[in-house]
Amino acid sequence: MPALYFHELEYQTRLAATKQAMLKSDFDTIILSDPANIFYLTGFDAWAFYAPLFLVVSCELNQPLWIGRFMDAVSAHDTTYLSEENIRTYPDNFVQSSTLHPVEPTALILKERGLDKGVIGVEMGAYYYTARIHAEFLANLPNARFSDAELLVNRVRLIKSPTEQHYLREAGRIADAAMAAAVDKCAPGVRECDVVAEIYSKQIGGTSEFGGVYTTSPPHFCAAERVRTPHGLWTDQPLKNNSALNIEIAGARLHYHCPISRTVYLGHPPDSYLRLADAVVEGLNTTMESIRPGMMAEEVELTWRKTIAKHGFEKEARLGYSIGVGFPPTWGERTASLRPGDKTVLKAGMAFHCMSGLWLENTGIVITQSFLVTENGNEPLTQFERKLSVKN
Amino acid sequence: MPALYFHELEYQTRLAATKQAMLKSDFDTIILSDPANIFYLTGFDAWAFYAPLFLVVSCELNQPLWIGRFMDAVSAHDTTYLSEENIRTYPDNFVQSSTLHPVEPTALILKERGLDKGVIGVEMGAYYYTARIHAEFLANLPNARFSDAELLVNRVRLIKSPTEQHYLREAGRIADAAMAAAVDKCAPGVRECDVVAEIYSKQIGGTSEFGGVYTTSPPHFCAAERVRTPHGLWTDQPLKNNSALNIEIAGARLHYHCPISRTVYLGHPPDSYLRLADAVVEGLNTTMESIRPGMMAEEVELTWRKTIAKHGFEKEARLGYSIGVGFPPTWGERTASLRPGDKTVLKAGMAFHCMSGLWLENTGIVITQSFLVTENGNEPLTQFERKLSVKN
Repeated sequence: MPALYFHELEYQTRLAATKQAMLKSDFDTIILSDPANIFYLTGFDAWAFYAPLFLVVSCELNQPLWIGRFMDAVSAHDTTYLSEENIRTYPDNFVQSSTLHPVEPTALILKERGLDKGVIGVEMGAYYYTARIHAEFLANLPNARFSDAELLVNRVRLIKSPTEQHYLREAGRIADAAMAAAVDKCAPGVRECDVVAEIYSKQIGGTSEFGGVYTTSPPHFCAAERVRTPHGLWTDQPLKNNSALNIEIAGARLHYHCPISRTVYLGHPPDSYLRLADAVVEGLNTTMESIRPGMMAEEVELTWRKTIAKHGFEKEARLGYSIGVGFPPTWGERTASLRPGDKTVLKAGMAFHCMSGLWLENTGIVITQSFLVTENGNEPLTQFERKLSVKN
Repeated sequence: MPALYFHELEYQTRLAATKQAMLKSDFDTIILSDPANIFYLTGFDAWAFYAPLFLVVSCELNQPLWIGRFMDAVSAHDTTYLSEENIRTYPDNFVQSSTLHPVEPTALILKERGLDKGVIGVEMGAYYYTARIHAEFLANLPNARFSDAELLVNRVRLIKSPTEQHYLREAGRIADAAMAAAVDKCAPGVRECDVVAEIYSKQIGGTSEFGGVYTTSPPHFCAAERVRTPHGLWTDQPLKNNSALNIEIAGARLHYHCPISRTVYLGHPPDSYLRLADAVVEGLNTTMESIRPGMMAEEVELTWRKTIAKHGFEKEARLGYSIGVGFPPTWGERTASLRPGDKTVLKAGMAFHCMSGLWLENTGIVITQSFLVTENGNEPLTQFERKLSVKN
């Protein structure tokens, strides 16, 4: 019996919403490649997407059709509700071969099911839907008309069910524990890699009640001069006194991600840095107080923008993005962003990471907050205090 | 000053080899998307490939041209030898936008440099070269002819320099330390996630001399009934006595990966399982004794195949693959595979993971070995004993 993370009914609800979106856009069939979308619709959970992996959804079929490398079919049996005949495979000689491509046997399976005609939607810009895969589909399914279905399922994912919200809260508890361990471990002379080892240990060990899983991205860990760098890698050098350190991580519970970022200052921060921290904290707190359903995503950003402008700061990068299920390389859902021009109306059940960080010419700071939109306002997903962590 | 992992001369040697390969295939320009290839040619090291990231190599240009999200340019300055004018960016409103695509400003930069004509090679099947990116290039660079350059740089990477071999050996030491910690931690009643937390802690903390970095893939950790599953995720359930557990991990030093897999048996293995272990260990040892330069990749596999066949076993999946630099989602280089039909001739400086694992109907076992091909034979990259680890 498969160990499902959600009741089968929840998967059916998600599938029905996906089919409705397909009908609206006149897709007969969609072929999904985004591992987060495949996980969302079926529960499929294994590290299988390094080889072409597809989930085929057709308005004609009761269940989606899983197609992947033969050795990963066991995981499809173990982690999804799909029945035997809807788990199909291609043989191993098609894996990373210079002469054979997995789309050839995949196309044969589609033909056999009569899914090789009409309008087929594919996720044109999804990370693992390569130009080669697309070219192979065009060549192997000449009777179909291909059209872009990128983000179709991502948009269905925007509003989280009560169980999804529960997992996001648990992810938040893991994120809090990992950040607390990191701040605790930081001290001048401690190697950066040893702090990150502590972060990973807590991300995975989780709490005494539940464990964590891998996050889509490694911790970003930028110390001393590198504090002006976003998305940087740790080193094995010791931390220095009188320097700032940016830590950007997430907790992940059953692939639901709750990000959190904090700056730790080792030693005594200069006044100019304290003023920067005050601006970011005020910007974040003012923004959080404002967030409620009915607002547009761009309005959230405007509150932040106005608040930090009073302190003379500006952020070019977007303020945040929708979160939920994440697979490498990003925990962002790639739909709604908190930025000018994004008219997405906030609704209860949506979740975001407010990425209130600033990177300036020679320095940087990150004090962020993930939250759920609720019926009346918002619920922070982490409890870690919103301030600069000073250790001296 | 950037902190380069290799002497600038080594990057120039790699670039020259790449340009030679380009000339042979009549490419005027190649646009790389594979983060491992970008890292290999420039040293670029940041988590930046979740947004379109390109490295442009032209036979006309002395240096490659880095093009990425504006906020990641700092990392290009800090981690590569590229000069200011060869680090170019696109603005943040092009990131995960539903109306704008980063290829538009990228194409303008190529035009400005006169690189918008002739034959442009792109990595059609590389993970982050999406169908959408390709379509945008075709639309935005109408004067160019596009052709497939997938694996062109991957093939240059096959033979490792002395410094690369040094990093692979260090990765092997991290892999050994992580596996030793895992086996040590395993016991009935210990939660799976707590063993994996220990693995991560050692993968990142490394040794007292050097630290580790993130691996391309999380540990695969398949316990009890799930031991028949490859590529599976751990749970937060306690380990059971009298059951087998497969652990597949790697150590990573500056993105050079050394994989290792072992099976741990908790309790007393039945005779049938001991016979399976004997077959795999004999297959692996016989194969390792045979490996020397001049052999073809398929011959390595044949030795394994013949040895386990004597015990009545057969493996459908390939026996192994070339290793070196790895970025998510795979540490395989996607070139040479140890499998029937692969005529790659082994040469000193190549590195492989011999993935001597077997997954049967109801069970599985993994006892593997990464190695370098040397002038006279081979050098194991990990020292962990090649046997079933029994804990009782």
